[in-house]
Amino acid sequence: MDTIGFNQHTSHEYNEELEEIRNLLLNMGGMVEKQLQKSVQSILQTNTKMAKKVIKKDLGVNALEVKIDEECTRIIAKRQPAASDLRLIIAVIKCSTDLERIGDEAEKIAKCGHFLIENNFQGQFYKEFEKLSQVAIQNLHHALNSLARLDFEAALATVKKDDFVDQLFESLNNDIILSMSEVPNQIQSLLRLSWASKALEKVGDHTKNICEYIIYLVKGKDVRHLDIDTLKEEYF
Amino acid sequence: MDTIGFNQHTSHEYNEELEEIRNLLLNMGGMVEKQLQKSVQSILQTNTKMAKKVIKKDLGVNALEVKIDEECTRIIAKRQPAASDLRLIIAVIKCSTDLERIGDEAEKIAKCGHFLIENNFQGQFYKEFEKLSQVAIQNLHHALNSLARLDFEAALATVKKDDFVDQLFESLNNDIILSMSEVPNQIQSLLRLSWASKALEKVGDHTKNICEYIIYLVKGKDVRHLDIDTLKEEYF
Repeated sequence: MDTIGFNQHTSHEYNEELEEIRNLLLNMGGMVEKQLQKSVQSILQTNTKMAKKVIKKDLGVNALEVKIDEECTRIIAKRQPAASDLRLIIAVIKCSTDLERIGDEAEKIAKCGHFLIENNFQGQFYKEFEKLSQVAIQNLHHALNSLARLDFEAALATVKKDDFVDQLFESLNNDIILSMSEVPNQIQSLLRLSWASKALEKVGDHTKNICEYIIYLVKGKDVRHLDIDTLKEEYF
Repeated sequence: MDTIGFNQHTSHEYNEELEEIRNLLLNMGGMVEKQLQKSVQSILQTNTKMAKKVIKKDLGVNALEVKIDEECTRIIAKRQPAASDLRLIIAVIKCSTDLERIGDEAEKIAKCGHFLIENNFQGQFYKEFEKLSQVAIQNLHHALNSLARLDFEAALATVKKDDFVDQLFESLNNDIILSMSEVPNQIQSLLRLSWASKALEKVGDHTKNICEYIIYLVKGKDVRHLDIDTLKEEYF
């Protein structure tokens, strides 16, 4: 396994500061992952209360993003970090944005859930929706683990898995669109299910971004926007 | 008008470096704005060639984002900036992400355009779609001007205008959904028009983020996720 820790400094306090921003980011990741799980559950279990809770809790995620960015800026100004420490801080700033946006997607899913429950949607395609959500949430979970252990190979493996999320979304979305033509009185609800699926696909994109920042952090090379074949050529 | 320049340094080279990343970001902004305009035109003028061009050109925007982040990281490592210079660099890093995502939205709109042209869509709601696009693109244009002149008040005014983008989107989207039930054989195309409208609404969100980073840059205070009333209380 190809892992690194970040530099150890003679200043005990500096080490703690770097550790703290990583912990804050992991806390934010854990919070967002839970939000996402609950947003999906609110749909599958027709739980209005849970949907409302997710919509309310997004504020906590937002506040954490601002706190992390402030901490990072403070450390840069105070410690003037170089090399891998600086990469860590830049990666944390970039990841916090993606985690915040995943929080936004969870909120959107919960809002769709709220609509579906209010409109007594009968749960067509919930099996496929559940499958998509499982893969998307699992990928996010793996990405957060890769972040916790700065595990380059796990991050790369998760980047590759995003294709599967895209495939599941495309297939489900095509089925939903077809069904819209057949059951026009269900269009409003089917549209919300399509939006919720699209939100899961976006979660996949953000998860991929996070993994690419981990690769950048470990390898010092920016791999965003490379296609998977180029990535493989570079690293396998 | 409340504007600031960034600090002037005794090192001529350092000043040029800071100027360069701001110019790179403004170039990226200009590129993205053009992409967005063309993506909308491809729909309104049923221009397949233009749609394909937008889809292809997103690669240039992606490359520019990576270049800007690398430049910013290099400057932090070399110059160890403090105070307002550091805020400038952090704001540039954050803005580059939002501009790249606006590029993604332009690509999505162009893809919807491509579908609509292929399927001979008759252009229902194009007047409303054009209105929405005009407001969204105008806001982006104002945000980029605020960035060029580091104009805090203009940035704040643009944040406020995002509500209008949201209203236009909600109204148009409701009309599209209603129409879906009435003309089921047009569902596929109406759905693409709904996605393209949603992409414009997302452009509005990213534009708002950029303005909030400008406010952070000028005022040194992070205003993300504050509601507009709190913003007004703080600054008026």
